[in-house]
Order: sequence, then C-alpha cells, then structure tokens
Amino acid sequence: MSVTITSVEVHDVRFPTAARGDGSDAINRGDYSATYVELGTDAGPTGAGFTFTNGRGNEITCAAVRALSHHVRGRTVEEIAAEPVAFWRSLSADVQLRWLGPEKGVIHMATGALVNAVWDLRATLAGKPMWRFLAELPTDDLVASVDFKHITDALTPDEAAAILDKGLIGSDGRLAELRQSGFASYTTSVGWLGYQDDKVRALTRQAYDDGWRAMKMKVGGPLADDLRRARIIRAEIGPDALLMMDANQVWDVDEAITAMTVLAEVDPYWIEEPTHADDILGHARIARAVDELTGGRCRVATGEVAANRVIFKQLLQAEAIGVMQIDACRVGGVNEVLAELLLAAKFGVPVCPHAGGVGLCEYVQHLAIFDYLRVGTDLDGRMIEYVDHLHEHFVDPVRTRGGRYLLPERPGYSAAMKPASIAEFRFPDGPAWR
Amino acid sequence: MSVTITSVEVHDVRFPTAARGDGSDAINRGDYSATYVELGTDAGPTGAGFTFTNGRGNEITCAAVRALSHHVRGRTVEEIAAEPVAFWRSLSADVQLRWLGPEKGVIHMATGALVNAVWDLRATLAGKPMWRFLAELPTDDLVASVDFKHITDALTPDEAAAILDKGLIGSDGRLAELRQSGFASYTTSVGWLGYQDDKVRALTRQAYDDGWRAMKMKVGGPLADDLRRARIIRAEIGPDALLMMDANQVWDVDEAITAMTVLAEVDPYWIEEPTHADDILGHARIARAVDELTGGRCRVATGEVAANRVIFKQLLQAEAIGVMQIDACRVGGVNEVLAELLLAAKFGVPVCPHAGGVGLCEYVQHLAIFDYLRVGTDLDGRMIEYVDHLHEHFVDPVRTRGGRYLLPERPGYSAAMKPASIAEFRFPDGPAWR
Repeated sequence: MSVTITSVEVHDVRFPTAARGDGSDAINRGDYSATYVELGTDAGPTGAGFTFTNGRGNEITCAAVRALSHHVRGRTVEEIAAEPVAFWRSLSADVQLRWLGPEKGVIHMATGALVNAVWDLRATLAGKPMWRFLAELPTDDLVASVDFKHITDALTPDEAAAILDKGLIGSDGRLAELRQSGFASYTTSVGWLGYQDDKVRALTRQAYDDGWRAMKMKVGGPLADDLRRARIIRAEIGPDALLMMDANQVWDVDEAITAMTVLAEVDPYWIEEPTHADDILGHARIARAVDELTGGRCRVATGEVAANRVIFKQLLQAEAIGVMQIDACRVGGVNEVLAELLLAAKFGVPVCPHAGGVGLCEYVQHLAIFDYLRVGTDLDGRMIEYVDHLHEHFVDPVRTRGGRYLLPERPGYSAAMKPASIAEFRFPDGPAWR
Repeated sequence: MSVTITSVEVHDVRFPTAARGDGSDAINRGDYSATYVELGTDAGPTGAGFTFTNGRGNEITCAAVRALSHHVRGRTVEEIAAEPVAFWRSLSADVQLRWLGPEKGVIHMATGALVNAVWDLRATLAGKPMWRFLAELPTDDLVASVDFKHITDALTPDEAAAILDKGLIGSDGRLAELRQSGFASYTTSVGWLGYQDDKVRALTRQAYDDGWRAMKMKVGGPLADDLRRARIIRAEIGPDALLMMDANQVWDVDEAITAMTVLAEVDPYWIEEPTHADDILGHARIARAVDELTGGRCRVATGEVAANRVIFKQLLQAEAIGVMQIDACRVGGVNEVLAELLLAAKFGVPVCPHAGGVGLCEYVQHLAIFDYLRVGTDLDGRMIEYVDHLHEHFVDPVRTRGGRYLLPERPGYSAAMKPASIAEFRFPDGPAWR
C-alpha cells in the first residue's frame, strides 16, 4: 500500500521561557521555540518533526520550511524509502536554496524539521518507536540512507556497513540491558547563568538526591564567578560524581585555555563549546592544552551548533573532541545524524547527544539508544543530556527514573506535540502571546 | 548634526536568469536575486545594501532582515560610528537570533545587508566613495570597527593597527597608479557549465580581444568534458594568460585531487572551491597535493561561501588557500570584511574578491581598492572577478576598460539599485514576475 504525503503544515510555536532565566547561558537568553511540521497523508497516519529555535527568528525557519516543502508534498513514503539520499539531497542540495547555507543555519535546520517528520511518519507506519525502527533496518538500508558526499575521506560506505554489521552482534543483549536499567543521563538544570548561588546549591542537592551523578553548569561569565559556582556544585556532589562545564562559545582560544587552567581545580569532566563552533583548529588546540592541564581527565565536547557532518568529520580528524554532542534537528535530520554516529564510531569517540530546549530530549533518546544497539555498542562515557523543561507539551514525553531515561515504546520519533499546546503557544496569535 | 535612521525597508528583487544558463555551475542554477535594504533618515540621504541570493528563498533572507531591523531603526549614524563593534554585535550576537547561525547562512547574510547599508549611508553622508571613505579613516577607527572576537589567536588589534599604519605609507602613489591603470580583473562569463563548446570558444575569443588576460571556467561535470572545455579555452588564450577553474564544491577531497591530476595539463592558475566550503582540513590536503602536482604553479582559492571570519582564519592557519576570495555580503558586511582583509595581510595571502551575481562587482571593487591602498598594498596576484550581468540595474554601475575596473567616484558603496528596476523585478508582484 502506497502512502502519499498530501500536506505539509508549519506552526510557529514559542514558549515564554526567557523571563524565568531558564536556559540562560553566556550568549543565549531565549524563548524556547519550535518550528513545528505536520505531514498529512492519504492513509491517515501523520508525521511530526520540528527544529528548535531560541525565540525571535522562529518565523524565519518557518519560512525556510515553506520554501522547502514542495520537495516533500506529493511524495510517497515508498519512493522516499527507496531512494533516501536522493530525497535528502532534494532538500539539502536544492539548486537555488543551497546558496543560503550550504548545509548550515536556517536552511539546514528547516531541512532537519522536514526530514525528521518523514522519519517519524515512517516509524509510525511501521508501528515502531524510532530507535527500534532504525535498529531493525538492514545494514544496506541504513548505509543507503547516509549521504557520504564530502565525508568519504573519513568514512566510506564499506566502512559504515562493517560498523553496522558488527552492531548486529549482541544487540539483543544490549536492548535487554537498556530495558532493565534505562540510559544514563546528566542534568543541565542546576547551573544556568541566570540562577543565584542559593538556587544552584538547592537544585544540585535535589538532583543528587534524585539520582543524578553527572551535572552540567554554564561557565563563561567572570572567571571568579564561574569558579565559585563550580565549587558549590562540586561540594554538593562529592569527588566521584561528574561535573561538566559549558562555555557556549564565549571564549577566544587563548582565553579558553587560561580559564581551564583555573577551572581545572574542580576536576571538570568536560569543557563544552569552549570557543566558536566553527573553529576546528581552535578546538584542537584547546583539547591538547586541556588534556595536558588535567592529565587526560578533562576533554573537549561540542556539537550542538556544529552545522553539519563536514564539521563533525573535521573535529574528529583533528582530534579536537573527546565527546561528540550530536543535535537531532540543527543538521539535516536522521539521515545526517546517521552519518555523524558512524563517524564517531569510526573514530572511537563517544556520543552524548545535546538535549533540552523544546523536545530535544524526546528526539535524542531514540538516537542514543539506536547508537548503543547498532553503532557505538558501548555505554562507556555515554550520557544523554536532560533538562526538565516543557516535556508536558509532548504526546509521548520522555520518562526518567533515578537519572536515567526509560525506553520510549510508542511508535514514531516522540516528536508530536499536543494540539492544545500548539494552539496555546502559537506565535503571535495563541492565547499565551496575545 | 545627528542623523537618525528612521526606516528600514526590505525588497525581494529577483531577475529571471535561470532560463538562460547564465550562472550555471556544478551545483547552482538560479534566478539571481537580491534581498535589498533601504535605510531612510531624518536628514534626507539614504543608505542602500543587499545580500545576494540565488532565487527561491530570497523571501527567507528578507524575513531575516526584518527580524534584525529593530537593531538599526532609530539608531543614529553617530552612535554607530562611535561604537561600531557594539552595533555589529547587536546584529551578529543577538541573544535569540544567534542560535540561527551562529554567524552563518541566512541570518548572517541578512546582517551583511543591513551592515552594508549603514556603511553606504556613512560614506554617502561623508560625500566619498566607500573605498575612499575607508582608506581615509584613521587607523584607530578602522581597528575599532573590527570584531576581533574568536580571531585573536591569529590577529590582535595591535597587529591590525600596525598593518593599517604601514598602509598609510605610499598610499597616494598607489591611488595615482589605480587612477591611471584601473584594477585588474578576470572574467567568469566565458565558461558556465550551461554553455556549449562553441559558445565557450566564441566568448573566450571575445574576452581576449576585449583585453582580459585571465578567464575562469566552471568544472565539476564529467572530467572528460571539463578537460575538453579547458583545452578550448587554453588554446584560445595561449600559454601566458591565466586560466582559473571553479568546482563549486562538487568534489570530495580525494576526487578533487584525482581531477586536478588530469586538469593540471592545461596549467590552471587556481582551483576554486574544490570541495565543501566548510572543509578546512580538506582544502589543506588538496592544497598540498595541488602544489606538489604542479610544482607550485596552481593554488587553491575559496571564500565565496566561507561563512565568517573564523572560517577564513582557519583556512589561513592551515595553509589551505593561496588566494582568498572574500564576499561582500555573505559575511556580516564591511566590518567583517575588514577582519578578513587584515587576516589575509597578516598571512601574506592575496585577496581576489568574489563577484558576479547581483551587484557583487559593484560592492567588491571598493573593497579591493581599499585593500590595495591601505591593507594588502600589493597588486601581485590581485584581481577582481568580473561578470557582465545585471549592472544596468544599478545607479552607479561598475565601469571597466580593457579588462580592468575603473575607480568608482560617486559617494557611497555603489549598492543603490534603480527604483524602476526594483519595481520591475520585485517578487512576486513586479511586472517581470506576474
């Protein structure tokens, strides 16, 4: 039975989070928003996808989705599944729209929203949660879903196939393990820059009591403040729990090295986004310095604004990262994330997905689980970010217990938002914004 | 006297060029378009700026200009001139909109259009063409216009000041030389992929007769076709004229090296965009290979879609380019181009600006002239791209003689389009599109 995508609807959904200081870091203070896509079909089931934005400008990504939507409307799910890279390139390499990227920023985020909605639809039609849909795809189908263009110098289709074939071995056991124990996570909710010391202390204590043994704080303010807050968290969590730091790109390369010389005191597990997201050579220099400063205890992490697989390829080639933080919807959706997971496996770097925002936890849990089952096949150093915001707006919200994600079981990519939430927070005409 | 920017108008202007095969290359086939910005003031004079796009999607950059325009509307020219980096960052580091880049793609192109319009207004108010306005600014004012954020590991304000101070020496003589001889250029109009062999031969012969001694062709089609077309051009222009090649990112890294092994036969002067624009390490590998293949006769050039100064910084640090091709409006306008010119001077790499499209020739002539007068101070290896399209729509179009740009003399940045052209080609309601 053929299923045709008959409609592509875009909603500008914004949550007024800026006023509360949630999500505040060295360079972002936003109203967490989603450029939300709904695909209608002639068969009944629908597909949902989105890209996350930070408030103002969500109308720009909505415009980009509309500009790309003719590549999706009228297509059948079967023809997309038969030639996934051809479909992906119809969006990412559109002969007129590619100029607006290429493969980066607004136009690529819009590609991600649409591509993810198609994958949500495919998994929904198959009656499987996305992680299981992907994990059960034959190696050939997974390899055929990856656009190897511009990454063959680091990863060939044959190498990808070998990784995925190897991932079949023991995957039942790994799945049983996840069903029993869930997937490790860390929390970012304790240390936003907008929070006062007392709030940081109280939230850290609460998170530790709730079972979290890995906490991330924002840095990049005055160095003395960063250190004071870091000491508070370290004092609360003891020497064994992990403390990660996130500078959100605020430092220059040499500033980052200087700052880490001071912050090394509290034994950070990673420093995230120490400098500009495009600065591969800068990250590599910082990684070497931090490795030396901490005797290998601290590593560099980045990825939430890495524009595409070509940036990740280079971060790995340059040994610039010890943790790869994929994002589900800044890049061109599931197809490009597959490339990134395979690159990480090839280079032996653990993937810890970026989450938070709107619905990013819902998305990335599927990717982390699939990565463990079929690609990375290891839990060592793997954690999913967790932020306790806005899950109530999703039809199939994440569930956690004791600092661990439980496996999602409903069909699809967990991307669908509740119609009432869309109506309430639609910008600018929803009641929340009027 | 204080001048306040009272209005920011955006026009979606598109020229139906796709049908003719002009501008066709390995990955782009577009309707050359401009996201055109007009600034109104309370003093009478206006400012014009634009970013170039490739047709569809021009409405997205227009939306991005609108999203950023509140940072410009209501500001005085004096306060912008007094704190140029603060003004620039109000656009490039907006706490909500930065997420859509950062500093790349749609949102950064919109920044470029607005920033350039402000510079056009400043030069217009000063009664000087942009090149002269810039060249006559004191070193301190030029340095204060550059955002050194994320590039201090390659260029410090002190180093920039030293370059600009040195540029004062002999600048009168350099200007006299330009007034007499104009600025060297090369033409890209002879070898678009959409043209047949006979058309390529005829256009090459015509260009040679018109005085051009440097021609650029598009490559990246079937290798045999590329070689055949290259031989046609080389046969027409003889061994001494320069033949440049532009692959528009179509190759993977190893493909690029293989292709250049073949194309080296026709003695190319540079290979432009041999692979993905974000692939700094890939460009560096190709540069080493091409250098070895040709005994240093051929170099790698790139930049027309380099997203920002951080990408250019790395291309220089990695020795990935022998020619730096700045674009006037993909990056954040004049302020960021200043950073790029200074980086090129620091690393001793010649700048050959990207032009063509809509109005890019008009823009970059000012930048190349300023670069010669005050920054790079050398003509060796410097050429401005020239494409003979769409100049008739500009109030102050470029003028060339014998393959050389003549100095523009009217006040401003030559960015203003004729009102009749805007009206005719405004999308979708102009007569040309109805």
